Amino acid sequence: MFEQIFENVRGKSPLVHCITNYVTVNDCANMLLACGGSPIMADDPEDAVEITGICGGLVINIGTLNQRTILAMLAAGKRAGELGHPVVLDPVGAGASALRTDTALKILEEVKPAVIRGNISEMKTLALGSGTTRGVDADVADRVTEDNLEGAASFAREFARRTGAVIAVTGAIDIVADGERAFCIRNGRPEMSSITGTGCQLSALTAAFVTANQDRLLEASAAAVCAMGLCGEIAHGRMTGMDGNASCRNYIIDAMYRLTPAELEKGAKYEVR
Amino acid sequence: MFEQIFENVRGKSPLVHCITNYVTVNDCANMLLACGGSPIMADDPEDAVEITGICGGLVINIGTLNQRTILAMLAAGKRAGELGHPVVLDPVGAGASALRTDTALKILEEVKPAVIRGNISEMKTLALGSGTTRGVDADVADRVTEDNLEGAASFAREFARRTGAVIAVTGAIDIVADGERAFCIRNGRPEMSSITGTGCQLSALTAAFVTANQDRLLEASAAAVCAMGLCGEIAHGRMTGMDGNASCRNYIIDAMYRLTPAELEKGAKYEVR
Amino acid sequence: MFEQIFENVRGKSPLVHCITNYVTVNDCANMLLACGGSPIMADDPEDAVEITGICGGLVINIGTLNQRTILAMLAAGKRAGELGHPVVLDPVGAGASALRTDTALKILEEVKPAVIRGNISEMKTLALGSGTTRGVDADVADRVTEDNLEGAASFAREFARRTGAVIAVTGAIDIVADGERAFCIRNGRPEMSSITGTGCQLSALTAAFVTANQDRLLEASAAAVCAMGLCGEIAHGRMTGMDGNASCRNYIIDAMYRLTPAELEKGAKYEVR
Repeated sequence: MFEQIFENVRGKSPLVHCITNYVTVNDCANMLLACGGSPIMADDPEDAVEITGICGGLVINIGTLNQRTILAMLAAGKRAGELGHPVVLDPVGAGASALRTDTALKILEEVKPAVIRGNISEMKTLALGSGTTRGVDADVADRVTEDNLEGAASFAREFARRTGAVIAVTGAIDIVADGERAFCIRNGRPEMSSITGTGCQLSALTAAFVTANQDRLLEASAAAVCAMGLCGEIAHGRMTGMDGNASCRNYIIDAMYRLTPAELEKGAKYEVR
Repeated sequence: MFEQIFENVRGKSPLVHCITNYVTVNDCANMLLACGGSPIMADDPEDAVEITGICGGLVINIGTLNQRTILAMLAAGKRAGELGHPVVLDPVGAGASALRTDTALKILEEVKPAVIRGNISEMKTLALGSGTTRGVDADVADRVTEDNLEGAASFAREFARRTGAVIAVTGAIDIVADGERAFCIRNGRPEMSSITGTGCQLSALTAAFVTANQDRLLEASAAAVCAMGLCGEIAHGRMTGMDGNASCRNYIIDAMYRLTPAELEKGAKYEVR
Repeated sequence: MFEQIFENVRGKSPLVHCITNYVTVNDCANMLLACGGSPIMADDPEDAVEITGICGGLVINIGTLNQRTILAMLAAGKRAGELGHPVVLDPVGAGASALRTDTALKILEEVKPAVIRGNISEMKTLALGSGTTRGVDADVADRVTEDNLEGAASFAREFARRTGAVIAVTGAIDIVADGERAFCIRNGRPEMSSITGTGCQLSALTAAFVTANQDRLLEASAAAVCAMGLCGEIAHGRMTGMDGNASCRNYIIDAMYRLTPAELEKGAKYEVR
């Protein structure tokens, strides 16, 4: 199934509008190109609405939000809704400041994203309307482990039911759920958390996958998460004794550029709960 | 000829003010350093005017324009004109939104760039006052091929005549023209379009080349285009079976860092029409 | 001593708020992760104050300042002061424009940074209230050499005395001084000046080091400068005949990721004057 989903990405070359933070934006653009998509960035409110109109999907990442870009996020998000384009929300740092939490909640309400992708702390913040986040990383107390996996999957399904969005909670074990089913995914490498922007890149990637597979949002999101983790594994396997997080960052994007749909199908490690 | 032009860049180390998009700005800075130039970025209107005053050239790239940076582009562009500094305009996404098209046309009129560098769709938009662009990429219908090369060269010469700028239309075949002559350039690799920002880097590079060679704007622009393409070829030759667009991005900049003026002279592939 | 300082960084994993330029922000984030710290970027004034509250330290880099981010710098800087968090100021381009000089002087006065890190031209501008900078690089006439080292060390100690900040003047020879002592550091490689953002990365790194070692600001700053230079040496040793500034950039961050506290202790090259 993931093979066909990834073939659709490569074949349709979805144009994805990214309103995203300036920390990791270059990696997001190269990741989109690596998977077969095409990126365009616009965050002036006037420009953003029009650019959304020529794209197939939109990712809204609040990592370095400001008053101007918040307007662009909301305006472009609503335009995407009118056009039936899938929107992926990445609530970076929700819970770390009121502006981030409030903005993420407002986007959730006014834009109705197709997918929300974040770490467990950000997701709990959105689900509960409050929470703790250690900056842009998940709080240790929140982390998804084998012991609390069932509870986390249940949380994701429930949050998906309430929002109507696919919920992608990523961490050591990733959970991608709609209201009925949760993919529990075990691809990836711990080193990925030492690279800035692997989460942002995954959100952009997810936007490409769902844009090219709008009839299968859950499976497309799960495929994107597996693909990202798999590329982390491939990158790790390539590291020499002198390589660190900078080279690994490049290798992950390289791996996506080389990854074939058949390799994704074969390398994806998940169970559905 | 290109040898001397590149020697001037390395020898004079031109300081180039970049008002450029935040997606590819880091690569533009490293590309400028790689060629022997020096970058400085300033996009606050007040700051931009003063920074232009201490530089030798200016590149205006509208890739992530907003209302504030548009003011900086116009103000710095006019200041550069007063000082006789060459300005390179990169009309990223002209044709994709009214704000981009209008801003590019306004800069064209008020700043009088020395060079305009873009893909064929962006250039047609500027020349005709309208056009179609697929986001930041050229529309397939517009692409320059061996079959329509003569027409494209003629378009570039004509647009150069009207604007007084050197016109650099880049794609599979690149055309760099003034009102009289068109360099048709066949350096480069198709993989370069899978790397975000190769066009932006080329615009920054062109600014360094023309700043160091103000008496030969056409030849300096053509030399920059050849140099970029040649570095793409060198980078491609270095790629392993695991490398993708991220590593290739690094290799292109590396290649510019290593490229000698004599190698550019020897590796440049062009004809003049 | 540096061994323990670096162990504290790796052990405490300081969360560092960066208000920094968009040119080199990604490298700053990866450098912070490489050393064992954790980055968060926020530059909306409202958001920045709150984010500072959850962090341990703050770096203010004025490289691409604008009217909005200047407000964020001042507000977050004051909040950090109230909380007793160390602030590192990187006055990028002070002396190159009035806005940069004035902003740096204002931060110096209102925020009272724990550390100021810049090149000699920027530092002289701040100390004398005027100066010349060649864009973001040091003026040749200012450069610290073996011949003027004693004078430069004396300048740094005196400036430290007046400001109460640790003064880190970096260049071919680095000087890190408080009012009493100056570390003269000879780690590093000339190639580092051909990579955009090595200074910015060092400022971010210094913030991590002082945040984890608040009782030893001078030594922690000197350790950060030695660590950065040492990673430049390691990166240089790894370069092949095809590598240039882009690969070297990655190798420096990689080297920090791999560097052990014992290696820093052993590789640091300095004398105290």
